[in-house]
Amino acid sequence: MDVRGFLHPRTATGRSSLIPSPPWHYSGDLLTVEYRTDPARVAELLPAPLALADEDPGAVAVIWADWQSCSASREELLDPVRAQYKECFVVVRCSFEGRTYSRCVYIWVDKDFAIARGLHQGYPKKLGSIHQTRPHPFGGAAPRIAEGGRFGATLAAADRRLAEAVVTLREPSATGGFVNGHPMAHHRYLPSIEPGGAPALDELIESGAAEFEAGQAWRGDAELRLFESPTEELASLRVDEIIGAYYRQVGVVWNGGRRLA
Amino acid sequence: MDVRGFLHPRTATGRSSLIPSPPWHYSGDLLTVEYRTDPARVAELLPAPLALADEDPGAVAVIWADWQSCSASREELLDPVRAQYKECFVVVRCSFEGRTYSRCVYIWVDKDFAIARGLHQGYPKKLGSIHQTRPHPFGGAAPRIAEGGRFGATLAAADRRLAEAVVTLREPSATGGFVNGHPMAHHRYLPSIEPGGAPALDELIESGAAEFEAGQAWRGDAELRLFESPTEELASLRVDEIIGAYYRQVGVVWNGGRRLA
Amino acid sequence: MDVRGFLHPRTATGRSSLIPSPPWHYSGDLLTVEYRTDPARVAELLPAPLALADEDPGAVAVIWADWQSCSASREELLDPVRAQYKECFVVVRCSFEGRTYSRCVYIWVDKDFAIARGLHQGYPKKLGSIHQTRPHPFGGAAPRIAEGGRFGATLAAADRRLAEAVVTLREPSATGGFVNGHPMAHHRYLPSIEPGGAPALDELIESGAAEFEAGQAWRGDAELRLFESPTEELASLRVDEIIGAYYRQVGVVWNGGRRLA
Amino acid sequence: MDVRGFLHPRTATGRSSLIPSPPWHYSGDLLTVEYRTDPARVAELLPAPLALADEDPGAVAVIWADWQSCSASREELLDPVRAQYKECFVVVRCSFEGRTYSRCVYIWVDKDFAIARGLHQGYPKKLGSIHQTRPHPFGGAAPRIAEGGRFGATLAAADRRLAEAVVTLREPSATGGFVNGHPMAHHRYLPSIEPGGAPALDELIESGAAEFEAGQAWRGDAELRLFESPTEELASLRVDEIIGAYYRQVGVVWNGGRRLA
Repeated sequence: MDVRGFLHPRTATGRSSLIPSPPWHYSGDLLTVEYRTDPARVAELLPAPLALADEDPGAVAVIWADWQSCSASREELLDPVRAQYKECFVVVRCSFEGRTYSRCVYIWVDKDFAIARGLHQGYPKKLGSIHQTRPHPFGGAAPRIAEGGRFGATLAAADRRLAEAVVTLREPSATGGFVNGHPMAHHRYLPSIEPGGAPALDELIESGAAEFEAGQAWRGDAELRLFESPTEELASLRVDEIIGAYYRQVGVVWNGGRRLA
Repeated sequence: MDVRGFLHPRTATGRSSLIPSPPWHYSGDLLTVEYRTDPARVAELLPAPLALADEDPGAVAVIWADWQSCSASREELLDPVRAQYKECFVVVRCSFEGRTYSRCVYIWVDKDFAIARGLHQGYPKKLGSIHQTRPHPFGGAAPRIAEGGRFGATLAAADRRLAEAVVTLREPSATGGFVNGHPMAHHRYLPSIEPGGAPALDELIESGAAEFEAGQAWRGDAELRLFESPTEELASLRVDEIIGAYYRQVGVVWNGGRRLA
Repeated sequence: MDVRGFLHPRTATGRSSLIPSPPWHYSGDLLTVEYRTDPARVAELLPAPLALADEDPGAVAVIWADWQSCSASREELLDPVRAQYKECFVVVRCSFEGRTYSRCVYIWVDKDFAIARGLHQGYPKKLGSIHQTRPHPFGGAAPRIAEGGRFGATLAAADRRLAEAVVTLREPSATGGFVNGHPMAHHRYLPSIEPGGAPALDELIESGAAEFEAGQAWRGDAELRLFESPTEELASLRVDEIIGAYYRQVGVVWNGGRRLA
Repeated sequence: MDVRGFLHPRTATGRSSLIPSPPWHYSGDLLTVEYRTDPARVAELLPAPLALADEDPGAVAVIWADWQSCSASREELLDPVRAQYKECFVVVRCSFEGRTYSRCVYIWVDKDFAIARGLHQGYPKKLGSIHQTRPHPFGGAAPRIAEGGRFGATLAAADRRLAEAVVTLREPSATGGFVNGHPMAHHRYLPSIEPGGAPALDELIESGAAEFEAGQAWRGDAELRLFESPTEELASLRVDEIIGAYYRQVGVVWNGGRRLA
């Protein structure tokens, strides 16, 4: 028989696949804190032939995102347990064949369909518990996306808090940050089933948004704290200097990429 | 020694209390489906001296709410795991001493601080898994709050789906529904610690919003399905006729009530 | 109409009640770490007329429990999402009218039915994430309940780790500890719905196991670490000196108590 | 630089990897229900060159497992949030090059490290909520592993219940079932990052337990119910005839496999 489905479990109909095929649509809010760490710590996360970016090589972005997402059918939107997820991810820049790429080095999400998309896209996803303050136009229990609006964001995994940030918006901004602004250069890697064998998959891929729209970005001040954990190295990317913080509402379509190496 | 704190656990400082004292602030989105069931099913949920409402006594509202909430300090907003929760609740109307009240007969929330507030307010809260589609201004993975916007909402508890709704917005509305529009008449009840003893607490209280602001309400069409469970009686409030559905963004302050009986 | 049910939501049948009436049956494993803290920190948690215990007044027990529980019908056991829960609780001793009582000052559980039982029993429950190593007779991924068996235990709430312990079993023990060995003296407390009003409920109750059976207790060495949190005061009960640690499998029936004051 | 780690995220130290390298140790309890379905439904889940097993080709096993697991360091056992997980999986048999294999066609787990191991082993894992009654030697809230012991087991995903079973033990058994008794033949599959491209990985692998020990297996009677879901096809494997049910405590080591095709 033939089995179908974008990903496992694959069946005659394809209906059981953990995720449908791209394009994937996303609507959500991004809270970004950019800072500088020791470039040596960034270099350690870049397997050859990737190298440090030429400019500001120690720049890091920690990004919280509160997403609703769906496939082309949009059916997930009416069963929102299948559409909503949150994530916190850490992006650095790197250089490959003379071009600058963004690269996600750590990422935590809170749904399995998000983990599965990450397998395809090369995001190194773990499960975490992620929260970020939501703006709302009414009442006293939410900031507005406006001067003075204050947003908190936290990340935990395995019952340990790993990161927390507080951002206070100051003024409209032309961008939502620069570290996550390039095409992504990611590895997709799976070891051999045979102990000691060559990897079954080890490829470098590039991808980026197929479509992008966004509201007015805001810039602000940020505090960012990273915490130690026996199973994480996020805190090794020590916060030496805050560059800036950003809030932006975006709509994104992702629809595949290409193999680089 | 004296112990302090609005609720347990009470300590010398009061800092450990599961919830701080009111006022409590809420900012969030309400998705309401109103329908008619057999008034006899409503009557069964009204302990004397409460009686069926005079008009439309079988009217029921099932309401999903996606909240951010905080105390007067607003400190929870910067640690949003302590501020955000979702709920699904079922409201009927009743009559007491010639006045019409709303009454929450079933409610599920997803955080302990929300359970604790419910103890105080007389909401009969259980834990559940609650989801509702979020509007967003950008991208294809969210409806807008506008004509044609489609929202899904689901409720589960103990790993069983209990309710699901789909609402399609049609036009602006002067209200967000009528069933949940009165002061709430709730019981606060705790059995005696002694088997067979008289209840330690059994009082009827009234409360309502101390402050309320809201955006434009929208009216729409709805489908609503209720499912059986061995530990729930929600499905006994059978959907005989859909009255209408509403979407509204609101800001609310709650700050206590008064004892009725 | 009359409504029935041991607790909310109360209905004509009583079937929706978050918990059925006692007796409640428990089968589970207890991991106990006992230590001494400054008695002044214990005294702060004892509202008058409770006073410090005469002997070893600074003794504290932190207890992890991995429970299966049910009502007299035992029907929960065949739908185990309704029967299984974990908890971590902190017990001190106190004196009332010349008698020594145990008293739970902090407790975290992971299910709503456990929160509801605590309302009745006077346990000041919050939700948490609780884990303790399970013994198992086969394979390398579990200790045995035997000399050298090592057990870990952790507690987190609101995405912060609050406590962690490691216990290594050394020898059989005549007891599973002494701090949690007395009848419990607990308060049941609910504020007035009217701001500034006298509490609606503020009573001191006593309860304990109606039946108890247990396997061989084991004694061991322990490490215990408590962590700060903005909403908790557990770490204020500083670990000055470890007294001992215990592992025991138990079966318990709880069936009500009596009012002390 | 070189990056290390068995799986993503890979770093200079390898410490961040979602899972350490095998061997992986497991200690846990297996509840198995075996039944017959239409062999055509099994055949639909077997991509060529796999074919139906020669004998009893419609046999299916639904297996619940309550695991504690660790790597060779065993460090996860002292931080049990990293060691404990539950799963429910569905196994059929198939034939490849004249040999009979077992094959997991659907599986749900409740931790990310378990998902990650499944990527390596070819188990098509999704997240779910899984519960099974635990035996315990004391008290009335647990069965014993003995004649008359009754165990319940449930599976849910995306807030919908997918399966539930009740098993009553009758007598000791020489085996814990036959459907899951062969080496596993699994696919590891990842689509091309380029839309329409050939799969990046599509291999057939074989693996099995490197070490196995177990207690006395018990056989019993079973009820098994499978429920529909818009994203699952488990219910298509209709229960035509119950073969038997088994309870067994096991210890397993898994340490890699080999590529078949």
